[in-house]
Amino acid sequence: MSSSKQQASLPFIGSLLQGERNAITDVAGVTVGHRTLADGPVQTGVTVIRPHAGDLFRDKVPAAVAVLNGFGKSVGLLQVEELGVLETPIALTNTFSVGAVAAAQIRRCLADNPECGRTLPTVNPLVFECNDGFLNDIQRMAVSEADYLHALAGATSDFEQGSVGAGRGMSSFQLKGGIGSASRRVSAREGLCHTVGALVLANYGRQPQLLLAGHAVGERLAALQAERSLPAVNEAEKGSIIIVVATDAPLDARQLRRLALRAGAGLARTGSVFGHGSGDIVLAFSTAYTVPDSVERPMPAVAMLHDGLLDGLFQAAADSTEQAIIHALWRATAVTGRDGNHRASLADVLPASTLFSNHA
Amino acid sequence: MSSSKQQASLPFIGSLLQGERNAITDVAGVTVGHRTLADGPVQTGVTVIRPHAGDLFRDKVPAAVAVLNGFGKSVGLLQVEELGVLETPIALTNTFSVGAVAAAQIRRCLADNPECGRTLPTVNPLVFECNDGFLNDIQRMAVSEADYLHALAGATSDFEQGSVGAGRGMSSFQLKGGIGSASRRVSAREGLCHTVGALVLANYGRQPQLLLAGHAVGERLAALQAERSLPAVNEAEKGSIIIVVATDAPLDARQLRRLALRAGAGLARTGSVFGHGSGDIVLAFSTAYTVPDSVERPMPAVAMLHDGLLDGLFQAAADSTEQAIIHALWRATAVTGRDGNHRASLADVLPASTLFSNHA
Amino acid sequence: MSSSKQQASLPFIGSLLQGERNAITDVAGVTVGHRTLADGPVQTGVTVIRPHAGDLFRDKVPAAVAVLNGFGKSVGLLQVEELGVLETPIALTNTFSVGAVAAAQIRRCLADNPECGRTLPTVNPLVFECNDGFLNDIQRMAVSEADYLHALAGATSDFEQGSVGAGRGMSSFQLKGGIGSASRRVSAREGLCHTVGALVLANYGRQPQLLLAGHAVGERLAALQAERSLPAVNEAEKGSIIIVVATDAPLDARQLRRLALRAGAGLARTGSVFGHGSGDIVLAFSTAYTVPDSVERPMPAVAMLHDGLLDGLFQAAADSTEQAIIHALWRATAVTGRDGNHRASLADVLPASTLFSNHA
Amino acid sequence: MSSSKQQASLPFIGSLLQGERNAITDVAGVTVGHRTLADGPVQTGVTVIRPHAGDLFRDKVPAAVAVLNGFGKSVGLLQVEELGVLETPIALTNTFSVGAVAAAQIRRCLADNPECGRTLPTVNPLVFECNDGFLNDIQRMAVSEADYLHALAGATSDFEQGSVGAGRGMSSFQLKGGIGSASRRVSAREGLCHTVGALVLANYGRQPQLLLAGHAVGERLAALQAERSLPAVNEAEKGSIIIVVATDAPLDARQLRRLALRAGAGLARTGSVFGHGSGDIVLAFSTAYTVPDSVERPMPAVAMLHDGLLDGLFQAAADSTEQAIIHALWRATAVTGRDGNHRASLADVLPASTLFSNHA
Repeated sequence: MSSSKQQASLPFIGSLLQGERNAITDVAGVTVGHRTLADGPVQTGVTVIRPHAGDLFRDKVPAAVAVLNGFGKSVGLLQVEELGVLETPIALTNTFSVGAVAAAQIRRCLADNPECGRTLPTVNPLVFECNDGFLNDIQRMAVSEADYLHALAGATSDFEQGSVGAGRGMSSFQLKGGIGSASRRVSAREGLCHTVGALVLANYGRQPQLLLAGHAVGERLAALQAERSLPAVNEAEKGSIIIVVATDAPLDARQLRRLALRAGAGLARTGSVFGHGSGDIVLAFSTAYTVPDSVERPMPAVAMLHDGLLDGLFQAAADSTEQAIIHALWRATAVTGRDGNHRASLADVLPASTLFSNHA
Repeated sequence: MSSSKQQASLPFIGSLLQGERNAITDVAGVTVGHRTLADGPVQTGVTVIRPHAGDLFRDKVPAAVAVLNGFGKSVGLLQVEELGVLETPIALTNTFSVGAVAAAQIRRCLADNPECGRTLPTVNPLVFECNDGFLNDIQRMAVSEADYLHALAGATSDFEQGSVGAGRGMSSFQLKGGIGSASRRVSAREGLCHTVGALVLANYGRQPQLLLAGHAVGERLAALQAERSLPAVNEAEKGSIIIVVATDAPLDARQLRRLALRAGAGLARTGSVFGHGSGDIVLAFSTAYTVPDSVERPMPAVAMLHDGLLDGLFQAAADSTEQAIIHALWRATAVTGRDGNHRASLADVLPASTLFSNHA
Repeated sequence: MSSSKQQASLPFIGSLLQGERNAITDVAGVTVGHRTLADGPVQTGVTVIRPHAGDLFRDKVPAAVAVLNGFGKSVGLLQVEELGVLETPIALTNTFSVGAVAAAQIRRCLADNPECGRTLPTVNPLVFECNDGFLNDIQRMAVSEADYLHALAGATSDFEQGSVGAGRGMSSFQLKGGIGSASRRVSAREGLCHTVGALVLANYGRQPQLLLAGHAVGERLAALQAERSLPAVNEAEKGSIIIVVATDAPLDARQLRRLALRAGAGLARTGSVFGHGSGDIVLAFSTAYTVPDSVERPMPAVAMLHDGLLDGLFQAAADSTEQAIIHALWRATAVTGRDGNHRASLADVLPASTLFSNHA
Repeated sequence: MSSSKQQASLPFIGSLLQGERNAITDVAGVTVGHRTLADGPVQTGVTVIRPHAGDLFRDKVPAAVAVLNGFGKSVGLLQVEELGVLETPIALTNTFSVGAVAAAQIRRCLADNPECGRTLPTVNPLVFECNDGFLNDIQRMAVSEADYLHALAGATSDFEQGSVGAGRGMSSFQLKGGIGSASRRVSAREGLCHTVGALVLANYGRQPQLLLAGHAVGERLAALQAERSLPAVNEAEKGSIIIVVATDAPLDARQLRRLALRAGAGLARTGSVFGHGSGDIVLAFSTAYTVPDSVERPMPAVAMLHDGLLDGLFQAAADSTEQAIIHALWRATAVTGRDGNHRASLADVLPASTLFSNHA
């Protein structure tokens, strides 16, 4: 992780206030856990976001998806789009470990809800992925079901960012990518304050495109890397970014889809044009209410936020996403992985102090 | 309209109970009005569905759209899909009169809500259309803003079906089409009963495809028409069908979209394959609650129906749609219009007594 | 499989001609293979559809998806929708075996295309599922990677239907369901003839809904089952149906999505209203051309079929789907599986000779 | 229009080369015409984009839509999404003039294609709108059918930008908005060069959000306006932006939808988060081939660009959109309209020379 001195000088995106932790866990009840596998050619892991502390199968959470670019292998989106709810924690991992993590979600749900396995309805695992094959020997399929359970059990409101969990082996802009998070507070109207938080798994971006708080630093980075004799990289976009947006505002699935799309505005401001080969997917959920699994239990009577009050939340989704990406880049430490492949950290290559010296 | 004898023998679709009127107006508060223009080459009109008796701009109604085939010129769907609400009555008319009717909706809304015109937000007119150009001299654009207002003012729970209103000039299966409606009652769970109603503007279908309550009567009709020396018609599908589904069940926009799609199942059971040239569009709305225009007014706290209880409503949407189409065909009286073009009524061509004599 | 006597009396849907085999393999180049696992409580399997005999990763096939109801766990749809192509064979299996089959597809693709694993782009496995947990002990996850390879290797144009492959443990309308297929020939215009074929994995339907060639036989079946002292079943819809539509007509992804939706019309004519708990998904592909994996190879110059000529194909998609479902029901033999659960075959319960005796 | 001195110092977005005119008309064959109405309280107009010089009904152009926010009243999108083609020129106007312009498109098409009016299929007018009611007395519905024809007849490759045509009365970021355009050249692969052009009708944006080439100038503008005693404006987002993207690359409708979405990335980089009240819609079309109206004429055999070569076009769509917005803001001259309402031009308020003095 970057030093506190560098942290202090990180650019702050937008004019909204951040939450206490400036992380997705500022949305009350949300916790995040990691399992990091870092052993030679194995540089990967799994990250779990729990929308609430209870059982998600029994108490589902409203959710929606915005697919910016569907070049990806994430599973579970079909049912989220149809039913507008999550029913497992949200798992992030590498492309080839989706199967193992999905199986872990199913088995854990069946263990916790034995009646779910006996009757026909089955749980819908929700696993997002990026391909960390540059640093990680992805064909080893190193992530096990136990790793998912480990990440789940360790979920906390005070979680690490950077080269951890699913972010361990990820690359972004030919630098080290990984996990980043941020949050914003929104006063939708007088006396009505909401929090929006974003968590990203950043594994996307071509270096020449990189914008940081509006600065076109892509070329500057290339020059700096050359100076430092780091290997010149000019790869095509083959990455992906997964963005998870949480809010405590009472929104239904339609509104959450609107919110999710605005995370794309934050992503665009980092230079992404949702490249062809990049699976760019946003999931948004609300913690304001839950939907019972059983039709025998009463549905919650919820007054949703009026659409006319969404603009602040839209701004917060975009700003917290852009900020989360900056955090992912700055907090990711350098990693050397399979075949000696290496990704430098942005904090090492480009100290924040030099980058933003002339930025008012 | 067909004689009561024929009516008595109309096939009844499905096993659910019908509502009192077997019409969309069985959904409490819904009314329907027509303006019929029938004068030589002008055979057209406008039909208005009012989801409630109040002002829809102030108290919007949750709604969603399912586009089965988007070969159409209806207006207003874009915003319904984004915001999940209606804010004007639903108007049906001929293709070339969409502009006049939309203008009438705007002006009426501005007159009723003067503040809407002064500030920038404008009303979203919602006008569906089919092309009645075979019977109606559509290029005369005979429908005026006054006609819309006339239909609106005359909206009632006890409305006519057949060759009336927007249905005046419509053709279906090379027979006379037009307006039809039906309803079904659903017991979603013990002590919880809901109504689903459908209204169709039927202007679609190639005669050989026609299925009536499962009977492939298309060829039989052709034979009968030949016997009676009626002109042989074998036109390509150039029509359309608009289906409006109403329910008093508390559903949000996501659920209403699911409901709307099931109307397509009822349409399919009449032989339609959603032909290339046919604009086949379904709009579904709920009367269970309204959404205020102003952010200053409180949003309603609504417990939506659990998705696990939707199957009865899905069945009702399909069955009432199929039934409404049968009503449109049977209740449409023969019309002769522009250039002497003529459409016979199904009730004349194929008496129900003969069709279903061997149908258990 | 039903006797030839019963086969002869099966209803024929629509007025189009069938292909030589009346199966999806009438689309030249398409082959189908099964691996059936039938051992006590294990009653399941995998079915593979190969769009062509070559390597699908190198020579992709244009494809599109229509989601009628997204309550399902199939994988690979996201990328098909974005890129409009398939890049693996189409696999069908039970819900809990999706992971194993997807892994098998990935490994097989990597073995055949070693360069795909070294560079980052990864293959998109395409696995559809239904839940066969009534007859099959699904938690055993009995389907292995070897089973996928076995089904793949055995793919042929002359394949079995009924209680085989992925259809082994499936139920439909509380009867034995499974694999069914059919085809239709379409003369889009003079001298231009195309074939449309459908293959279904039928695991859906509540018995009271069942329509066969327009006959509401659901209640009749219930009566017959009662007479024969078969257990009365009245389960909620918890099933699913996967429909795969193939054509040799040159269509792009947009047109294939249109075609896929029309399979839903055929499904609706069997009584389905796309029930809440049923994952009803259609995939359509064309064999008329392929898309190269490598940007170094030339793209094919294809004259697509004019949209104005699609109506015949739409009819063929609906008719071959309805016919395929009838085949699935009739050709499925009775199966007794886990916990002694049993599904009777339609052919046993309701001989075709009795059902359609008075059907002209 | 801004002086050439100011033009020279306008920021240039991205690293791709611009076309000869840096306008959408760099895509060969595309022309643009305006009709500007500027008379006291009437400050509005119509702008027409012709994809080619021929008759679009006879020779349709492949097209697709990306709806970033569907709070809008544009007409014609439904059919473009279904059929993937345009069949009229693209018209832009104010919200209340959509009807008149659509009627003009229909009548012009009928006049040019008399057979279209006699047979049932009708033309699909394509009219985009923004609400210019702040400067323009929109309720006068001042735009006539003759105005559309005037704009159409005057279409040229060398067209004006700024406060002209449909842009006459538009506001953006509480400054004068309007028409802007830009283009980029892309070398998809060796020896294969394509042009992407964008034209925007900019009527969106809250001033505090405004980013110009990455600079958060919103607050700076507010300060400058205060210094100059211009009225303080802090309105909610009630605007819209229409973005039209043209390319000469051979793309099908699916690919054009992908391209259209990337224009949203360019829009986001100007500070937009696709505000709730803003109808933000992108239309993309290709001039590489046409689709005949009649099924009797042969379909073109086109080798589409490989999706793996789209990244350059995606970048070009984003960059030319951002650039076009900058042009719209800079080239728009101040306008005083209804009730004395006034919008200053950005070029007056914030000379480019001062803004970008410290921008390398």
